[in-house]
Amino acid sequence: MHKVISTAVIKRLPRYYRYLGELRKKEVVRISSKELSERMNVTASQIRQDLNNFGGFGQQGYGYNVEYLYTEIGKILGLDEEHQVIIIGAGNLGQAIANYADFARRGFAIKAVFDVKPELVGKEIGNVRISAMSELKDYIMKNKPDIVALALPKEYAVDVANDVVSWGVNAIWNFAPVELRLPKHVVVENVHLTESLMRLSYNIRALKNKQENEAAQYDAPGVETESAAAKE
Amino acid sequence: MHKVISTAVIKRLPRYYRYLGELRKKEVVRISSKELSERMNVTASQIRQDLNNFGGFGQQGYGYNVEYLYTEIGKILGLDEEHQVIIIGAGNLGQAIANYADFARRGFAIKAVFDVKPELVGKEIGNVRISAMSELKDYIMKNKPDIVALALPKEYAVDVANDVVSWGVNAIWNFAPVELRLPKHVVVENVHLTESLMRLSYNIRALKNKQENEAAQYDAPGVETESAAAKE
Repeated sequence: MHKVISTAVIKRLPRYYRYLGELRKKEVVRISSKELSERMNVTASQIRQDLNNFGGFGQQGYGYNVEYLYTEIGKILGLDEEHQVIIIGAGNLGQAIANYADFARRGFAIKAVFDVKPELVGKEIGNVRISAMSELKDYIMKNKPDIVALALPKEYAVDVANDVVSWGVNAIWNFAPVELRLPKHVVVENVHLTESLMRLSYNIRALKNKQENEAAQYDAPGVETESAAAKE
Repeated sequence: MHKVISTAVIKRLPRYYRYLGELRKKEVVRISSKELSERMNVTASQIRQDLNNFGGFGQQGYGYNVEYLYTEIGKILGLDEEHQVIIIGAGNLGQAIANYADFARRGFAIKAVFDVKPELVGKEIGNVRISAMSELKDYIMKNKPDIVALALPKEYAVDVANDVVSWGVNAIWNFAPVELRLPKHVVVENVHLTESLMRLSYNIRALKNKQENEAAQYDAPGVETESAAAKE
């Protein structure tokens, strides 16, 4: 499995996994790509194509075995191993991450949380004690966490990311609104909330434009679009 | 601007916007697509192509005017209008969203927060008082918020989403790990944290496979990959 898989496919895999997990809970044994596609709003041929990247799993006219597909996608996603996660930043976002029960269920164990603020050190979030940033280096060297979540202001994110990478960390889950430039052997996954909100805002505007455009075409054929829309 | 823009382009626009905002703060007046591309890790031709979707903005051999491009991309993203946002769910995640200063700066104003828990109602987060869910309908009918952020457990997310849409809401920012099926005129932007973590996990595994594969090819040409890698 050493070929390059497109990011679009990688984006869909966790959705398949989540959905198959729901089916599994409902004790559904088998599902066709057609049913899967209707529920997930992806075409059936897209699903077949996506899964063919990893060698198939389905049988023509017979559908997918839910349990098997769930397990196999889990392996592709690396969920058959536990991941040790530490969080840097114990503000609202760091606390939200530390307390998010879904992660533990998927094998992502929050092992430690660090913060610069002395008044936070020693407190507990989730079931984890907040440690001082001065303890971070020793902790990482000793425990070699798999993933470091950066939930701290962007002014500090770049330096802290460089530090933890120099101490041996290879995977960063970055919540700070900044582009990290790290060596090639380091994997970075960004959660940029402001960008997500901007995409929403873009789509609100795009939909409004489309609706106004359609209304204009319908109400006043031949009339210039902008002014017709402005009448609304 | 009524043509369909690919989601990949829409995904990159907020990054351009963020980065141009940083340049603007540093009082950079002009930037070439080459420089922009180096800083952003996107090819120069990709940048030109992306911006051509919206009619260009650059001049051959002269680069982009930072201020102008920043303003224009802001308009495309709908950031020239203020958006009124309400948050449903005042747990850690809801609080993190309510307190995230970056949003206000971009014109996303958090106007109200709702929660079912009586012990939270009346408390303040950000500068906003937490209201009871029983007040939600009246609030929406009266204030017509632009965006509803769902930061509540997935068991409730589907019903609440259907409710707020029936009360006139057209844009949902969904943090609950569930697929919302809403009418076509409703815009949904999902932030699925567990899926993000799974993509990170996938990439950790993929990188490890790649490294083992390369090591195996280098160390023991002709020897079967798996066992060679296992020696590592």
